[in-house]
Amino acid sequence: MRDFSADHRWLSINTATVRRQRGADWPLAQILDACAARGIRAVAPWRDQVGVAGLAATARQLRALGLELSGYCRGGMFTYTDAAGRQAVRDDNRRALDEACTLAAPCLVLVVGGLPGALAGHAAHREIAAAREQVTEGIAALLADARERRMPLAIEPLHPMYAADRACINTLEQALDVCDALDPPLADGTGRRVHSGALGVAVDLYHVWWDPKLAAQIARAGRERLLALHVCDWLTPTTDLLEDRGMMGDGVIDIPRIRAWVEAEGYAGYSEVEIFSATNWWQRDGGEVLDTCIERHRRCV
Amino acid sequence: MRDFSADHRWLSINTATVRRQRGADWPLAQILDACAARGIRAVAPWRDQVGVAGLAATARQLRALGLELSGYCRGGMFTYTDAAGRQAVRDDNRRALDEACTLAAPCLVLVVGGLPGALAGHAAHREIAAAREQVTEGIAALLADARERRMPLAIEPLHPMYAADRACINTLEQALDVCDALDPPLADGTGRRVHSGALGVAVDLYHVWWDPKLAAQIARAGRERLLALHVCDWLTPTTDLLEDRGMMGDGVIDIPRIRAWVEAEGYAGYSEVEIFSATNWWQRDGGEVLDTCIERHRRCV
Repeated sequence: MRDFSADHRWLSINTATVRRQRGADWPLAQILDACAARGIRAVAPWRDQVGVAGLAATARQLRALGLELSGYCRGGMFTYTDAAGRQAVRDDNRRALDEACTLAAPCLVLVVGGLPGALAGHAAHREIAAAREQVTEGIAALLADARERRMPLAIEPLHPMYAADRACINTLEQALDVCDALDPPLADGTGRRVHSGALGVAVDLYHVWWDPKLAAQIARAGRERLLALHVCDWLTPTTDLLEDRGMMGDGVIDIPRIRAWVEAEGYAGYSEVEIFSATNWWQRDGGEVLDTCIERHRRCV
Repeated sequence: MRDFSADHRWLSINTATVRRQRGADWPLAQILDACAARGIRAVAPWRDQVGVAGLAATARQLRALGLELSGYCRGGMFTYTDAAGRQAVRDDNRRALDEACTLAAPCLVLVVGGLPGALAGHAAHREIAAAREQVTEGIAALLADARERRMPLAIEPLHPMYAADRACINTLEQALDVCDALDPPLADGTGRRVHSGALGVAVDLYHVWWDPKLAAQIARAGRERLLALHVCDWLTPTTDLLEDRGMMGDGVIDIPRIRAWVEAEGYAGYSEVEIFSATNWWQRDGGEVLDTCIERHRRCV
């Protein structure tokens, strides 16, 4: 397991962590400058932030600053109620794929969607199994394009509390079942199973830390399918289902233990901090938040 | 699958559903009277409510009204930090067992506890695997007493959002793994596996509805281990992790489908309504809530 205590070379900042400080959007260009100024080497920007800043301008700035991506956030939301919705989903995901390529992302992260309409408070139906079928079909369609572009797709299982409205893939086991179905392992000639790397998972500790099968499923994923590692912490109490994530070290997740499991499989990429925190971290100066991420990355991850 | 549309003979009311109406505790004795007056045949009282009403008085009232229990709510909270805590847990669970026997409950429901101290906001450690071991040991110890008393223990897997502070058994699969470990299935002479019925599960749809393995695990449980069925609904959005449960029909859970799976295994007991709702149902007249439970039981369960 890598030693993070001496520097922050493996820290990445998901830009949602500092997207809206004290009630005002922090422009993506300024976030990138602030990260680079602190020696942070990687970020994971959100599509809406890139949309405001401009795709080409963001790509140029990233290159100028020497910033890498740890992932592009995000494609997905595959569920729909009619043919027009299905087409809109596919078109939007192809655009996300194009953007990920333009930004030289190592993977496009997929938050797969829940029951159609539920995010707006009006679920079209209660058939989560049907939603899951749409998700699998949507990933299959996108995967064909993604293979051509050589852009890995990272399915992010979301915490079961988001099953209705954000993502109906809720465990690592379930995500890996989809990987096995759409991108089956191949024998490498020596009898070992190998994965293409075209489809894998993003392991966000906030979503999966509770899972009694977590260690076993990380081992099942193996190196080629562990495409991203996201960290933050689970607070007790948690006062909001979406926007009360904790800074690493402030909650109950045994982050180093889980990181050790991931690295034991050969994962050697970034540790990406993604914190939605309406009443705490979003109420602070963005630079203070980044400085805290660096300190906690070294001490608590 | 039983037809619930014509009557409410299989409706049970978990008394937390109407415990605190418009800011004032509704005394258990009045809740029982109000249930009986509506032809409700079963309840699941909470220990603290029974404590206030008096155990013997409650047992007498239940008999006088002809009310059954669908379960006794609850034992558990097995995790601890020191030997004194361990002993206190065991003593308290033995008392819960005694009370369940006095009230002629069909089972004692177990909410197993999370990281010690987390419910008070101060987790003693982050080792959820260690907490899970304490839980298994605690259930094993209680099971010995429960077998003597012929009181089935029903492990209730709680939603993963409660893993830190309320229960570190979070899926039906995990609960059944504990059942298999502590109360292994026996061969019945014809090669069929049979379960003793001493240890099983309480299936609360709020906690398990999202699980992609739910149907398979219900089938795995089988008749002898399906000791209780709890219903309410998952709202979108959900505004509070604990006290924003929905009335059946107001959310996204496909209740009849899951009830069908449970009944296909032979479950023929009550459908117990358990709703914690700080800003909606707890703000209404208790009688109105009970009337709504009856109507929704017939139409949406």
